[in-house]
Amino acid sequence: MLFSYQQLYAFTKKVFLSIGCSEADGETATATLLSADLRGVDSHGVARLSGYVRLWEVQRVNSSPDIKILHQTASTATVDGDRGLGLVVAPKAMKLAIEKARSVGTGWVSVQNSNHFGIAACHAMLALEEDMIGIAMTNASALVAPTFSKERMLGTNPICVAVPAGDQPPFVADMATTTAANGKLEILQRKGTEAPSGWIQDKDGKSSTDPHALKNGGALLPLGSHVEQGSHKGYALGSIVDIFSAVLSGANYGPWVPPFPAYVPMPQNMPGQGIGHFFGAMRIDAFRPAADFKKDMDQWITRFRKAETIDGYDKVLIPGDPEREMENHRKEAGIPLHEAVIKDLQTLGERFSIPFNN
Amino acid sequence: MLFSYQQLYAFTKKVFLSIGCSEADGETATATLLSADLRGVDSHGVARLSGYVRLWEVQRVNSSPDIKILHQTASTATVDGDRGLGLVVAPKAMKLAIEKARSVGTGWVSVQNSNHFGIAACHAMLALEEDMIGIAMTNASALVAPTFSKERMLGTNPICVAVPAGDQPPFVADMATTTAANGKLEILQRKGTEAPSGWIQDKDGKSSTDPHALKNGGALLPLGSHVEQGSHKGYALGSIVDIFSAVLSGANYGPWVPPFPAYVPMPQNMPGQGIGHFFGAMRIDAFRPAADFKKDMDQWITRFRKAETIDGYDKVLIPGDPEREMENHRKEAGIPLHEAVIKDLQTLGERFSIPFNN
Repeated sequence: MLFSYQQLYAFTKKVFLSIGCSEADGETATATLLSADLRGVDSHGVARLSGYVRLWEVQRVNSSPDIKILHQTASTATVDGDRGLGLVVAPKAMKLAIEKARSVGTGWVSVQNSNHFGIAACHAMLALEEDMIGIAMTNASALVAPTFSKERMLGTNPICVAVPAGDQPPFVADMATTTAANGKLEILQRKGTEAPSGWIQDKDGKSSTDPHALKNGGALLPLGSHVEQGSHKGYALGSIVDIFSAVLSGANYGPWVPPFPAYVPMPQNMPGQGIGHFFGAMRIDAFRPAADFKKDMDQWITRFRKAETIDGYDKVLIPGDPEREMENHRKEAGIPLHEAVIKDLQTLGERFSIPFNN
Repeated sequence: MLFSYQQLYAFTKKVFLSIGCSEADGETATATLLSADLRGVDSHGVARLSGYVRLWEVQRVNSSPDIKILHQTASTATVDGDRGLGLVVAPKAMKLAIEKARSVGTGWVSVQNSNHFGIAACHAMLALEEDMIGIAMTNASALVAPTFSKERMLGTNPICVAVPAGDQPPFVADMATTTAANGKLEILQRKGTEAPSGWIQDKDGKSSTDPHALKNGGALLPLGSHVEQGSHKGYALGSIVDIFSAVLSGANYGPWVPPFPAYVPMPQNMPGQGIGHFFGAMRIDAFRPAADFKKDMDQWITRFRKAETIDGYDKVLIPGDPEREMENHRKEAGIPLHEAVIKDLQTLGERFSIPFNN
């Protein structure tokens, strides 16, 4: 079933207003959440709306946060999200990074006391219209086992780097630091099909292709999958995201990051505040004239697009190509929602007397 | 055969002075080069000394460079390495990043017109003694095929992130953005044993375990190895290193990066100057009091070290543990050199009338 962006926007915004968001915050939260549906990251979009509402119900989300700067220098800041929706806290923090970049070349903002921020790309890409490189990352609750570990110690901890170009569309790499994002595993669970090798290990730390292994005490694997294929590098990348997002800001890290589902108990002895994010903005003309950079970036992109392909493959992709094509398509054709998601949104709508229909 | 650090230092420094380095540059180049031997990255240490000399012979390395800032803001700079040894250019650029961080919280330096800089860790770790997080990356000549590509388009493009701790030793993640570094493949070539799956593809883009496939028109694979295991993420990471190091600085990028071996012809129609690096320094007290950060970083490290291991594995490692242990060991026990490397150094020594013996 297809829904127009406008239709989902109107519904989602009303829900955010119903839980107490201001008009402006409701709009920000809605645009951030739905950017995932537009870009084809269905696991992070409107399908999660009821999850955010449940976090508000158990008072883990504050719908009218007082977002404050705790500490700053000319190029940095640490922000207290005051338990706000990450969907609102993150764009504010990213804009602060952009402001600092305007004045001293780059800006770097670490955030504590926040919640799930949607897709990283949405925040990093705010830098593009300013002719800046944008960087966004966040930690998340532990699902991933470091190399040699049975225990889950890290979240899927995504990183996005967005780079402006000239005539070419921007380079936008947005990726979990695991072999596969959890959303991809959920799709296999619904279909009842096996997972590719290297995505997960079982509760004893043995490589598994059972998509339910994660639920049964297993773990997602870091990018690289196995020891011989460099899983220690994926583990290091996830760790860097955790440290920049949480050790630098004073948020919770490692196995102490609060879970997204409101029914999952909170970790014991949490060392920090909420979950953590990290944002960066670098003005390209802080390094060289913007026009020169864009000319080279266009050449970088066109040369990589023209790389000779392996037989059976059509073309070499530039990071961001598939999501941009999806966005163009869905803006026109509408956004498909799974039956279970539609039901969930209808139930949510009934509760706040906001009709959800197609 | 074992050699003391002091012995290799004295020899290497004399070689650098013989090709025209100043006393100070010779010392910097030597310390940078040998840091690889100490940390166990044998492919990047004194084994490469004759390679640097050959680059000087063909006038691709300038032993008395005029290293200049081309452009700067309060938190950024672009540096022209004037074809200097990367071993000398890189520490200067990193120190500039540190200086800027001292004044505005963070510093970011992009470098063009440089050469191979040794190991990334050596540069990133300069930030540690200043209570800063250090970041170093570099591009390199194309050996790596992007996802779906037959063509080599990227270098092994390493990233290092070094994070200070309190009582614990620092976190130092230094990694090629490929499944396996080229040096590891060279070891298999010498031994004549097969490579693990996921390291390389052959000239047609088919997965291969032949360690010679790379020489025969194949390519190294990005971290992730295969499409289903997320190789597009390793490709994106290598691309980010290439863009930050070279598109931001005006160096050569993608398939145009000059090769390290002096006998390999230079690429045609090069768009930039030399190879590129990128450095960052972030003062931890630009985000929160250093003592608070260090306390949490110590807790991060100790908690990860205590993670429950998979049967058969002794302990979960923190990035940087193996290299630090190796350095402590080799400082005492000496540095082992392969017979071929000893011969190469003896020949080099004869040429400059510097005896090399054990």
